[in-house]
Amino acid sequence: MRVGVIGGGQLARMMIPAAIELGVDLRVLAEQSGMSAEIAAERVGDYTDTATVLEFAKTVDVVTFDHEHVPQDVLRAMVDAGIAVHPGPDALAVAQDKLVMRQRLSELGLPVPDWARVETAEELDAFISEHGGAAVVKTPRGGYDGKGVRVVHSAAEVAEWFATIVEDGRQGALLVEELVDFRRELAQLVARRPSGEIAAWPVVETLQVGGVCSEVIAPAPRSAGRLADVAAEVAITIAEGLGVTGVLAVELFETTDDRILVNELAMRPHNSGHWSMDGSTTGQFEQHLRAVLDLPLGATGSHGDWSVMVNVLGGPAEGALTDRYAEALAGHPTVKVHNYGKAPRPGRKIGHVTATGDDLDSVVYEARAAAAFFQD
Amino acid sequence: MRVGVIGGGQLARMMIPAAIELGVDLRVLAEQSGMSAEIAAERVGDYTDTATVLEFAKTVDVVTFDHEHVPQDVLRAMVDAGIAVHPGPDALAVAQDKLVMRQRLSELGLPVPDWARVETAEELDAFISEHGGAAVVKTPRGGYDGKGVRVVHSAAEVAEWFATIVEDGRQGALLVEELVDFRRELAQLVARRPSGEIAAWPVVETLQVGGVCSEVIAPAPRSAGRLADVAAEVAITIAEGLGVTGVLAVELFETTDDRILVNELAMRPHNSGHWSMDGSTTGQFEQHLRAVLDLPLGATGSHGDWSVMVNVLGGPAEGALTDRYAEALAGHPTVKVHNYGKAPRPGRKIGHVTATGDDLDSVVYEARAAAAFFQD
Repeated sequence: MRVGVIGGGQLARMMIPAAIELGVDLRVLAEQSGMSAEIAAERVGDYTDTATVLEFAKTVDVVTFDHEHVPQDVLRAMVDAGIAVHPGPDALAVAQDKLVMRQRLSELGLPVPDWARVETAEELDAFISEHGGAAVVKTPRGGYDGKGVRVVHSAAEVAEWFATIVEDGRQGALLVEELVDFRRELAQLVARRPSGEIAAWPVVETLQVGGVCSEVIAPAPRSAGRLADVAAEVAITIAEGLGVTGVLAVELFETTDDRILVNELAMRPHNSGHWSMDGSTTGQFEQHLRAVLDLPLGATGSHGDWSVMVNVLGGPAEGALTDRYAEALAGHPTVKVHNYGKAPRPGRKIGHVTATGDDLDSVVYEARAAAAFFQD
Repeated sequence: MRVGVIGGGQLARMMIPAAIELGVDLRVLAEQSGMSAEIAAERVGDYTDTATVLEFAKTVDVVTFDHEHVPQDVLRAMVDAGIAVHPGPDALAVAQDKLVMRQRLSELGLPVPDWARVETAEELDAFISEHGGAAVVKTPRGGYDGKGVRVVHSAAEVAEWFATIVEDGRQGALLVEELVDFRRELAQLVARRPSGEIAAWPVVETLQVGGVCSEVIAPAPRSAGRLADVAAEVAITIAEGLGVTGVLAVELFETTDDRILVNELAMRPHNSGHWSMDGSTTGQFEQHLRAVLDLPLGATGSHGDWSVMVNVLGGPAEGALTDRYAEALAGHPTVKVHNYGKAPRPGRKIGHVTATGDDLDSVVYEARAAAAFFQD
């Protein structure tokens, strides 16, 4: 069983332990040497180059991804060459373009914020004035961790984005969405096999700081019952409707008037699922491998009543994460530390910690206190 | 943090996921290419050759082991070169020679079976006749998984062993022990840091078939209270008394007259601790790395009330373990499968499965039923 992963970041890295345990031969096509997934890096190459990717793909049984940025023509060349690609090009097309995503979700009848495709400043200003004088503008492609997302009160605030989309020759447009009045953000992860089986983890609550995920509580507090059911149903509808294979993360808004709206999608293991490595019978990286190999999915029950994951962002100003281990581990023996092997840099995700237990307050405290040792 | 592991078997392999998660750079000196720990194999070389081992050791911060067979002169050459070696030569000397082990345990005042060092058939026959006409004879070195251990009623049954020990020039002797009338076998694992901290997992029950571990139940049923305390105390006394660093496994007999006797020692992660990877907050491979790096040890609480590990011995007559995944995983979604990446061969340990939960009967059933898919 050989699985090829395109991209050598921390998501590819975290697939490696699961691969070793299951006996999967995992091979990574890394963007450069010395990346997080270095130990499994089969070769270094450009994932936008069809020949490079095809050559790599022919050495494995299934190709999957560390990110969603492999171009459609490269994806389709693999499929044309008879290679199993999960998730496939059609599904990834939806994750790669937020306008396509909004369109397809609307077609599936799923609850989304009011949105529009805008090609001109006039169209954007019209949307803003129809929605209370403010809106969220997103570049359809290439955004992540809050990049390519801006809250605006006038089209003038994204004038340079309009300039860019005209230049890229794709008859460009921007996505504009209503500014949702939300109580909190949630995420629902599921995994789906090519043959159709789906498994869902409990819906989680995610905390963002500056557009970057900072903390995840699993399950989301006060989610038992209807909320959990709705969230799972939304994610399953998307996974089936778009034919997603592997792990799908659906970011959700819980609005102040008790609606659940779909915010973003990710078709790969996701930051909001890292807690499952330590808190669930089946972690998201193992489940992703099982799914893309079309193996039966694992159980998604939890070890404790609660798991809390806190990201390590930036890291120590000087020195390595490991320099803080003696203090951090001594005070927090139940916390699990995950180190992505990346050099600290302001705002960069370089690791995370997870605490698990039956008392939410203690679990939150343990995870935050341990993570604090790693951040200046 | 660079840890060098001498030996490329499944114990080295199972350190890799823990190393990746903690951000430890793990490098393996493998006996040959294509071994279980291949993905972390830094080089292939002979662990009995001082120059080879020293060259490898100088690339890492700490050296530890997949097995206990590195010769004393090689171990001491590393220490003399200023390399941190855990466990160290003095501790390993006790694990490498069962006569030394019996001697040191007796000196520590620990309960052991009646034993004697015998150099001649006459001495052995005398011991046998003093102990009811039967005894267990062991070669002091090189035995594992029941090899080098024989129940005899007369010295004539191990005549060729006497011949061998004379030849090896070590003024050879055999170890003879009383045939213990035991109710069951137990194992107590602890981890100890160079700076002294010790952490113990719960005592477990082990089932052997033909001298090979077949199944482990954690914790040992009916062990709460005195038995658990005694087992932990014995292992801690050994770890401190012998200065063991890293994981120490103490195999114990629970006799029919309710005594606890020390059977064997292993100074490394051990088959009887594999359950902890899935059933404990801190698995034995993570704990071993933390211990040899002199980092604070992790908590040893359990995820469920019970964990049961069943070894996969031999494997499918034809084909790979992975050929059975579709059936095995479909029926047993809560079970964790560990595949050592070894070719199936009769009697060979090629993997294990672990089930965890709160009802012992169900947990035993799940683990055995899942493992059965992998064995012909």
